[in-house]
Amino acid sequence: MYELLKVEGRAKRGVLRTVHGDIQTPVFMNVATVAAIKGALSTQDLNTINTQVALSNTYHLHLRPSDELIKEVGGLHKFMVWDKPILTDSGGFQVFSLAAMRKIKEEGVYFASHIDGRKIFMGPEESMQIQSNIASTIAMAFDECPPALAEREYIEASVERTTRWLKRCIVEMDRLNNMEDTINRKQLLFGINQGGIIPEIRIEHAKIISEFDLAGYAVGGLAVGESHEDMYKTLDAVVPYLPQNKPTYLMGVGTPENMLEAIERGIDFFDCVLPARNGRHGHVFTNHGTMNMYNKVHEKDMGPISDECACPTCQQYSRAYIRHLLKAKEMLGMRLCVMHNLYYYNNLMSEVREALDNGTFAAYKKMRLDRYQNS
Amino acid sequence: MYELLKVEGRAKRGVLRTVHGDIQTPVFMNVATVAAIKGALSTQDLNTINTQVALSNTYHLHLRPSDELIKEVGGLHKFMVWDKPILTDSGGFQVFSLAAMRKIKEEGVYFASHIDGRKIFMGPEESMQIQSNIASTIAMAFDECPPALAEREYIEASVERTTRWLKRCIVEMDRLNNMEDTINRKQLLFGINQGGIIPEIRIEHAKIISEFDLAGYAVGGLAVGESHEDMYKTLDAVVPYLPQNKPTYLMGVGTPENMLEAIERGIDFFDCVLPARNGRHGHVFTNHGTMNMYNKVHEKDMGPISDECACPTCQQYSRAYIRHLLKAKEMLGMRLCVMHNLYYYNNLMSEVREALDNGTFAAYKKMRLDRYQNS
Repeated sequence: MYELLKVEGRAKRGVLRTVHGDIQTPVFMNVATVAAIKGALSTQDLNTINTQVALSNTYHLHLRPSDELIKEVGGLHKFMVWDKPILTDSGGFQVFSLAAMRKIKEEGVYFASHIDGRKIFMGPEESMQIQSNIASTIAMAFDECPPALAEREYIEASVERTTRWLKRCIVEMDRLNNMEDTINRKQLLFGINQGGIIPEIRIEHAKIISEFDLAGYAVGGLAVGESHEDMYKTLDAVVPYLPQNKPTYLMGVGTPENMLEAIERGIDFFDCVLPARNGRHGHVFTNHGTMNMYNKVHEKDMGPISDECACPTCQQYSRAYIRHLLKAKEMLGMRLCVMHNLYYYNNLMSEVREALDNGTFAAYKKMRLDRYQNS
Repeated sequence: MYELLKVEGRAKRGVLRTVHGDIQTPVFMNVATVAAIKGALSTQDLNTINTQVALSNTYHLHLRPSDELIKEVGGLHKFMVWDKPILTDSGGFQVFSLAAMRKIKEEGVYFASHIDGRKIFMGPEESMQIQSNIASTIAMAFDECPPALAEREYIEASVERTTRWLKRCIVEMDRLNNMEDTINRKQLLFGINQGGIIPEIRIEHAKIISEFDLAGYAVGGLAVGESHEDMYKTLDAVVPYLPQNKPTYLMGVGTPENMLEAIERGIDFFDCVLPARNGRHGHVFTNHGTMNMYNKVHEKDMGPISDECACPTCQQYSRAYIRHLLKAKEMLGMRLCVMHNLYYYNNLMSEVREALDNGTFAAYKKMRLDRYQNS
């Protein structure tokens, strides 16, 4: 399913073939938490900005509108009118970051909904069942995401439980994929490596989970408060112990700089709320670094956000107009900035793929980072 | 400029030829108060939903981003990326409905900005200058809009002042349209009939303003609190005294029923915030009346809002998904409902034009009203 097309150092250029189409990697997955990209982007917009994969959220969709409803109406692809790949995260991260009154037990996690306080239990089996109901292309294993700077003892125990949970996920997904009324019986499972920023725990865990023949492997529990240096060191340590001939996914990362550094270290799947969230606040990405579109300097500027950008926003609209919309709190201002940012991220990955195809990734990365830093 | 193509009773089927293209009437103008349709609609969306005319607001644009800025960057068409006709209202209505500390004098109105309290003066000349800076296709005369149920004495004095203001508007626009650096030197001026719901004041005023050879005539000061019956009676009385061979514009109206009744009475231009505002609140228009998309009945309904509708929303998205988006407060939900509603209004006018072309408006109107009422 995953074909490694080319390598440059550790950097991987690949393609993951799925029932919903091919994913060319490195890829940035566009975050559609509750089955929509925040910022009023429609399916047509996603196609216009070259989105390859939408990423939705098991925890959020379980609470609302509920995975049973999504199954009943034919699955998430049909519900949100998106026929390309969808990855769902397992809900683990949200249970640990959003839910109240959380109790972690061997069987799973007891918690209260952040919407209405309703008591909910989610364990590996529940997470797999929900993701099977949603019928995403790729399901993520249910893991615990311990605080990056937690005590070694806590992290060790947590990682061992995550391994036991992974085994239960594999068994349950196998069962679900063999059921007659499962919508996507070819759903793929990615495992998640944990271990905070302690290299030997990360490596030990990577070795263990690599023995399961999963469709892909994620590095979780990073970008949760540790320094960039610690993140890069952790990737340096652990990625060599994950299968090179499988997708390698760095969860929740990050800035363009972060992604370029991580690609160099062997990562080829990314997701992050940053481009959409920053866009909604008028912060946009360009080859010269970020800009705040609220700034007065843009007041009468009829040029685009970036004259190097081919996104629908830059092809039509001026900085002056976008600034006006943002200041007047017109939703269109947010939408235009989000479209620009997601296009920027998708296009960056497209440029990275081209560089890898040409064996010029190292030079490309240096050029990009130089321009970010010297603007 | 205005060609009356056909009449059926008082109902008019016309075309207004402008420097920004033809306007086929009856027409519903889509309200873009501060140079954008609320609900994140882009220029492309407006074309997709068959918008003929965008309507923007002199008062709002004067305050933010300012008409001087809009002139400096080349006019509103260039600023908001819209090359079809734009009508600007005069600011009069907003001065009377939004601004604080309002003082009406013969020279104009002193008021405080609703944004920052800044003191502003606007009279007929200022309104024309602002609209000339904005460079809309059609400018509206600066008038006073007295409360519909004000005393006869107040209304009489107010209407007389509105007439004196109209004369000053004509002189000032003539001056502006003859200036070298005016962006749209073919800007058109529509006058506004006032007089509350007192037929003889309305008629007297209509006779007076009809003597000026304006590009169009509006009926203002209706739909501001009076009953529908009073509105229709006022139209019955006054429209026959407005030139039939000029556009006739009923300002701020209304529901589909209101528009059908007004078309029968000789009106052929409309604008209203209703379809966009209701859309943002999940209330949608259909041939069977309105629906609240928050209602539980839509929870699992994979059908479109209306299976008779060819709008981009109904062509792709289900009631179930739209309800989910609205409940999750995803902006896309608002955008989809606004697009549907504006398309509904634009399409209703298109059907009306076809009926008038075929001489079947009376039957069409009866059919539509019957379906609204018996659904």
